[in-house]
Amino acid sequence: MRKVLAFDLGGTKFAFGVVNEDGSVLGSGRVETFAEKGPQQACERVAEATRKLLAELRLKPADFVAIGVASPGPLDIARGCVDGSPNLGSAWTGFSITGFLSNSFGGLPARIDNDCNAAALGEYRFGAGKGKKNVVYITVSTGIGGGAVIDGRLMRGANGNAAELGHIPLTMDGPRCGCGNPGCWEVYASGTAIARRTREALAAGRPSSIVKFAGGIDQVTTHHLFQAMAEGDALAKEIWAESINYLGRGLGAVINTFNPDVIVVGGGVTAAGDALFVPMRKSADQYAFPRLSAVCSIVPAGLGGNVGVVGAAACAFEHVS
Amino acid sequence: MRKVLAFDLGGTKFAFGVVNEDGSVLGSGRVETFAEKGPQQACERVAEATRKLLAELRLKPADFVAIGVASPGPLDIARGCVDGSPNLGSAWTGFSITGFLSNSFGGLPARIDNDCNAAALGEYRFGAGKGKKNVVYITVSTGIGGGAVIDGRLMRGANGNAAELGHIPLTMDGPRCGCGNPGCWEVYASGTAIARRTREALAAGRPSSIVKFAGGIDQVTTHHLFQAMAEGDALAKEIWAESINYLGRGLGAVINTFNPDVIVVGGGVTAAGDALFVPMRKSADQYAFPRLSAVCSIVPAGLGGNVGVVGAAACAFEHVS
Repeated sequence: MRKVLAFDLGGTKFAFGVVNEDGSVLGSGRVETFAEKGPQQACERVAEATRKLLAELRLKPADFVAIGVASPGPLDIARGCVDGSPNLGSAWTGFSITGFLSNSFGGLPARIDNDCNAAALGEYRFGAGKGKKNVVYITVSTGIGGGAVIDGRLMRGANGNAAELGHIPLTMDGPRCGCGNPGCWEVYASGTAIARRTREALAAGRPSSIVKFAGGIDQVTTHHLFQAMAEGDALAKEIWAESINYLGRGLGAVINTFNPDVIVVGGGVTAAGDALFVPMRKSADQYAFPRLSAVCSIVPAGLGGNVGVVGAAACAFEHVS
Repeated sequence: MRKVLAFDLGGTKFAFGVVNEDGSVLGSGRVETFAEKGPQQACERVAEATRKLLAELRLKPADFVAIGVASPGPLDIARGCVDGSPNLGSAWTGFSITGFLSNSFGGLPARIDNDCNAAALGEYRFGAGKGKKNVVYITVSTGIGGGAVIDGRLMRGANGNAAELGHIPLTMDGPRCGCGNPGCWEVYASGTAIARRTREALAAGRPSSIVKFAGGIDQVTTHHLFQAMAEGDALAKEIWAESINYLGRGLGAVINTFNPDVIVVGGGVTAAGDALFVPMRKSADQYAFPRLSAVCSIVPAGLGGNVGVVGAAACAFEHVS
């Protein structure tokens, strides 16, 4: 079976793995990124760890057909570079990650893709979107990220930065988003945003058992919201209902935009399980055209913690197919 | 050169044409739809007029490779039917327009597409998006409609109803849209919406020369807004600036979603020309990621009044390519 070397670059961890053409992970690992020390060191560190893994697996670069890299955007895909990522720092801009890794591993063809786009292709080929033609991936986590596979092909756009779906507007005058605009979807419905809205309600003096679980207002995360909700806490239920409404409004827009067969939802907030998916489905249906929502399922991600590496692998296989 | 028979079905007119593979229109015409009399009569009427055109052009069904139909959605593409269109009426649901036209013209292969999606493919192949890979078409008219060509292929979605871009949210609690939701893009920024917002401001007693041009508040359209604006009317300028802001917010979302090479904008509101395109471009840039807006041009539609027929033709050629 054909194999690829896959890398998942993040602000804190740089993961790597050996992935078969059926999506199975033969071996994997991760190193610290230490993004602030720049790309050369981080790439050397991950290449060294990867070489060790290959030695353990008794594999050599010639056993692989390609290299795939998933990275936070924005990217300069043609040059294999990060291009102005707030998570990695300016030292990364212009350093060809694909060039470095290709040189490190026998000149294998290498490509870089936005991490959410790679995740979409991974879920389409190997995960919860398998067998469907039109798959949108949404991650609800620190922010909200997206990727779309349209009729079996990853939508990259003009320069590889398509599907910034967290920046669908929900309001014209809401809280300021990291992108500079007011009222983007992710400032209402990301995990960070749900926690922020909870802390704001608590700071305004609303009584709730959430603080008890968190220890203090500043420590509140969505996890404590779920804990309080399980106990029937009124504020927790209210904030969760609002969050579901925001999530549904955005997902409704995604359905109306892409008319997908399936929306695969990943990210930390999906730990809530049915408490998320059941009402979120209902809310999305309310906001989407019936004929479009009728054919669209909304399901949890299938690749779990492997989504980065397996997504990068899917992009690598596509690159040489 | 290969030719197709192209049809553009609308609530009031049913247009038809003979289109060459280079997009040139050899002949065209239109009949009344009389939608309320049902699809059988309308299709017979357009088929008869088309037969006359073919006779004039000394062409017969065997001179064509396919039939294309552009129609308001939602559609059942597989069966060639309209499926619950508010503009056409329930009698149209389930009647195979492609079946009828194929039977009428020598059994030619026929396909139906959403009119905005067909327009997107038409502008991509023959119009203002020619030579680009990723083309989004937006019409700003009675409503706001959209279509997207992704990496050279029309995005149809799971059941042919993709790119309902007029229903991107701008607010969570704005005016109710025809789709049932509050605050969709088209309830703020379509031609109808701009006129409605103007009439509301006038009805609230705001002084303006707009009424003079229209004759009365109830008669106000965007045309009268432009006339008053040309005279320096303060209210007209204010409403136009708000409209530009709404258009830009939506276009910013389109850029962040598709990362297109070009957005082609058609529809009645584009009659405003540079008074629309220059500030709308600036507004869109404010709301989109710089790296994405930098590669995306925003241009007027290239196919003008032919967009329906030529779009349907583009879909027909694609169907048999």
